Amino acid sequence: MAVLGYAIVTTPTVTRDDVLAARARVGPRVRRTPVLELEHGTFGVPGRLALKLELLQHTGSFKVRGAFNAMLASVVPAAGVIAASGGNFGLAVAFAARELGHRAEIFVPETSPPVKARRIRDQGAHVRIVPGYYDEALEASRQRASETGAVELHAFDQREVVAGQGTLAAELAEQVPDAETVLVAVGGGGLIAGVAAWYSGDARVIGIEPERCPTMTEALRAGGPVQVDVGGYAADSLGARRAGVIAHGICSRHVDRVVVVPDHAIRRAQEVLWEGVRVLAEPGGAAALAGLLSGAYRPEPGERVVVLACGANTDPGSLADAPSPGSLAEPTSAR
Amino acid sequence: MAVLGYAIVTTPTVTRDDVLAARARVGPRVRRTPVLELEHGTFGVPGRLALKLELLQHTGSFKVRGAFNAMLASVVPAAGVIAASGGNFGLAVAFAARELGHRAEIFVPETSPPVKARRIRDQGAHVRIVPGYYDEALEASRQRASETGAVELHAFDQREVVAGQGTLAAELAEQVPDAETVLVAVGGGGLIAGVAAWYSGDARVIGIEPERCPTMTEALRAGGPVQVDVGGYAADSLGARRAGVIAHGICSRHVDRVVVVPDHAIRRAQEVLWEGVRVLAEPGGAAALAGLLSGAYRPEPGERVVVLACGANTDPGSLADAPSPGSLAEPTSAR
Repeated sequence: MAVLGYAIVTTPTVTRDDVLAARARVGPRVRRTPVLELEHGTFGVPGRLALKLELLQHTGSFKVRGAFNAMLASVVPAAGVIAASGGNFGLAVAFAARELGHRAEIFVPETSPPVKARRIRDQGAHVRIVPGYYDEALEASRQRASETGAVELHAFDQREVVAGQGTLAAELAEQVPDAETVLVAVGGGGLIAGVAAWYSGDARVIGIEPERCPTMTEALRAGGPVQVDVGGYAADSLGARRAGVIAHGICSRHVDRVVVVPDHAIRRAQEVLWEGVRVLAEPGGAAALAGLLSGAYRPEPGERVVVLACGANTDPGSLADAPSPGSLAEPTSAR
Repeated sequence: MAVLGYAIVTTPTVTRDDVLAARARVGPRVRRTPVLELEHGTFGVPGRLALKLELLQHTGSFKVRGAFNAMLASVVPAAGVIAASGGNFGLAVAFAARELGHRAEIFVPETSPPVKARRIRDQGAHVRIVPGYYDEALEASRQRASETGAVELHAFDQREVVAGQGTLAAELAEQVPDAETVLVAVGGGGLIAGVAAWYSGDARVIGIEPERCPTMTEALRAGGPVQVDVGGYAADSLGARRAGVIAHGICSRHVDRVVVVPDHAIRRAQEVLWEGVRVLAEPGGAAALAGLLSGAYRPEPGERVVVLACGANTDPGSLADAPSPGSLAEPTSAR
């Protein structure tokens, strides 16, 4: 006879304590990235701005924070670690695994640029090219992990990964203790979830998404992660098709709002970062600033705002060669 | 009847007090550029390294420090300021003049890349293109200043300019109070003179010159500035043909040594700065690191070393497009 009952499903989450534990775990394995204070009126926007230069992190993005924490929180067998990623997370896992002496196997979708697979391989990881897109690579990596017993690392929807990304915020809170607002680019939501878990309302956390990758915007609207069509200029790093469950939960509680920006504002943000500060960011790494430039988020005159510049994995020549903002696709009318 | 006598010629110099006065003068008009602490073994060299990211300064180089100080220490007439430069100093003077509301006239040698003249013009300065090289531009600027009464600013051989560059060291001393050694690229010597004037022996200041621009090396050997043939990969920013009198005097007293590096080490330094730290430096801005990579200066294992990354005025595409290190001219056998 069947027994009927209630299953209480709780969404996994991450707290400030988890971030503190992650910070103790990763210690000096990640760089304390510097903050550049910007003078009044920089970029022609209001607010007292500071730029957190996380793109100077190992492997050129914040992703190593989560990769290190996830590995250090696990008992990693000889089979090592497995991840699916054609980009920054794959590179970060490969780097962290090498540093910690673990085997790493990275499943890269064949649609990723070959240069990224090469860079992951250069870090000593085993690279498996999988036909299709990220979802197919993820499925293949799970299949493989079930065979080998390797520890699976998810690019954003894993507690230890989110807590690791949150160490950026714990560090920032020491560097800019009076921060009122923190602007964070959103892809799958791992970074903003870690940041918001740390601040837990003590600072206003604003998410910035490309109009053509509105993954978290749609998740918040729907009350949970939903499948979203993604594309455009920053899709290589912010083009997650479905937000993380953990990230959605944290964003629902601790993120003030998520705003969207057009591709041409992201391109413009890359340009002004180079022209005004000599910082070279990838599109996803410049998206948070695009939130200011586009007016999607408009600070008060004296507001203390920190912009996270979180990734630099682009060809330096792309800033010279890429199409000018005017020739980039305009935002879709749907948004 | 002629009277014979002795003329006591004293070389003008700069002291730590001059640097302190400069710092009070320029205040927040220059950016406090951040320091990135590097982990053990970065770039495969010994020492505990930190990178002073002065290339994030306004206009992409340290030159605005001297430009601001020289203007703020002068009574600038309506005729404004005049300088000769086809590069970073011209850009810095144009920027500082605009900020302070002064007219600026910059004499640019026709041999400078047109893009630099354009950028100086973009800052609102009047640009005069002069046939020939820097010396001809300098002569023309002096002629013009004698007619207009504008304040002349020298790119490196002027007390206020040297004291202004020294503010970088005063700032660094707060950021890395335990610095034992500071590596500085040398062109005409304005930056190293300011840095050495500040430290006055409290830290070991090492100058780095391209082998093909050995201007200070030859000045120290000859006991005073001499005309030197310059060329090669970093000549656009480090190719002064004669060291400053002020810089030579300060280097004689307060600089531990000046070492030379081959062009391919400078190129390699640019590459590892990008690959390892996502910092994009121009050749002259990477030369100090080349001093470590080439082994021209070899720190002790625990030595606290600061490398100044002092300029980023290059086309980002140059890092992708430029010849590989192997194809750059090898060091001349003369050195």
